[in-house]
Amino acid sequence: MAVTTPQVVEDEGSRARLVSAAAELVHAESYHSVGVKAICDRARVRRGSFYHFFESKQSLVLEAVEKIWEGFSAEVLEVCWDRSIEPRDRMERMVEQVVRRHTRDRERTGSVLGCSFGNLTAESTALDAAIRNRLVDVFDAWAAAVAVPISEAQAAGQIDREAPAHGMALEVVSELQGLILMAKARNEPAVIETGGRNIVARLWGARAP
Amino acid sequence: MAVTTPQVVEDEGSRARLVSAAAELVHAESYHSVGVKAICDRARVRRGSFYHFFESKQSLVLEAVEKIWEGFSAEVLEVCWDRSIEPRDRMERMVEQVVRRHTRDRERTGSVLGCSFGNLTAESTALDAAIRNRLVDVFDAWAAAVAVPISEAQAAGQIDREAPAHGMALEVVSELQGLILMAKARNEPAVIETGGRNIVARLWGARAP
Repeated sequence: MAVTTPQVVEDEGSRARLVSAAAELVHAESYHSVGVKAICDRARVRRGSFYHFFESKQSLVLEAVEKIWEGFSAEVLEVCWDRSIEPRDRMERMVEQVVRRHTRDRERTGSVLGCSFGNLTAESTALDAAIRNRLVDVFDAWAAAVAVPISEAQAAGQIDREAPAHGMALEVVSELQGLILMAKARNEPAVIETGGRNIVARLWGARAP
Repeated sequence: MAVTTPQVVEDEGSRARLVSAAAELVHAESYHSVGVKAICDRARVRRGSFYHFFESKQSLVLEAVEKIWEGFSAEVLEVCWDRSIEPRDRMERMVEQVVRRHTRDRERTGSVLGCSFGNLTAESTALDAAIRNRLVDVFDAWAAAVAVPISEAQAAGQIDREAPAHGMALEVVSELQGLILMAKARNEPAVIETGGRNIVARLWGARAP
């Protein structure tokens, strides 16, 4: 009887499961507290196969950032381009979707987990510049989406035209990052809701009631 | 010849060195990437002695947060109470001191390391509630300092009195946290400088030039 050497056939399902597991675990805990073993266990992929797909935890997490970005973009940012909705309502909905994500995290885990992009930034000193650079792209792309309703509102005379829309949008993203961090500290998504309402009200020239 | 069992005499110097080492290493890297061994090595304390002083890495880091807060408070916040300086100038100096800290970090290490309090918040999901609660106290104390020039400026009619000073101050702290995170992503302390100038200008009712 011939002895067959079983070849490890790793399907694309394993690869995708590793990316999903990394995205979930790093978000739920942190980059440095999650090891390759935990990611493999969650993905139901043998540890020995990990390096068949990825050079390192960092290269896996770089792909996980793409995956998180796709989900975030679809859930939170798509509304920014919807010209059937008033610019100010689009901004409000964008903020509401951010609040919804953090409310959902707390319902599911008991904790506001924070923004995956912001959390990774906070942990990035010890990481490759590749991850940090990708995070800058993410923040810029988020701001590019937010700039759409802002520039339309500027064109419609609803918002001050002196400042460039992209600069204002970068401020909005930065302010949201601050709010999400404060919401995480207090374990209270309402921090983002109240603060986000103030951001929109301030852009449109009046303080929220 | 009598065999003497050397008793480990751990002086207060060892304890203080452990706290300093934890404060430095966690700031330079991250909570989860720094182990007890690295902290002991940096502090020149034998690993076996660590638990003579601290129950756990978390309890050490809780003390490190106190130490960081003392330094931060003395360097950044003291000016908020200096009534010999105009309220707006105090706010500007507070922001400048924040910028100075992050500029100094980059000069020393090549990287904007971010705010120790913000970084720990981002990593806090897997940590004791004790640390998270202490971080909330820190953000509140920071806001209490910032509220001093704001409320004086309100009394002097320089700032809108409709919103309570403490609420405005909490917004300032949240916005600074967002800016520090963005500065870390871009490795550029000027992000805090520009954004901080906008915060102060907005509070005093005009956009920065």
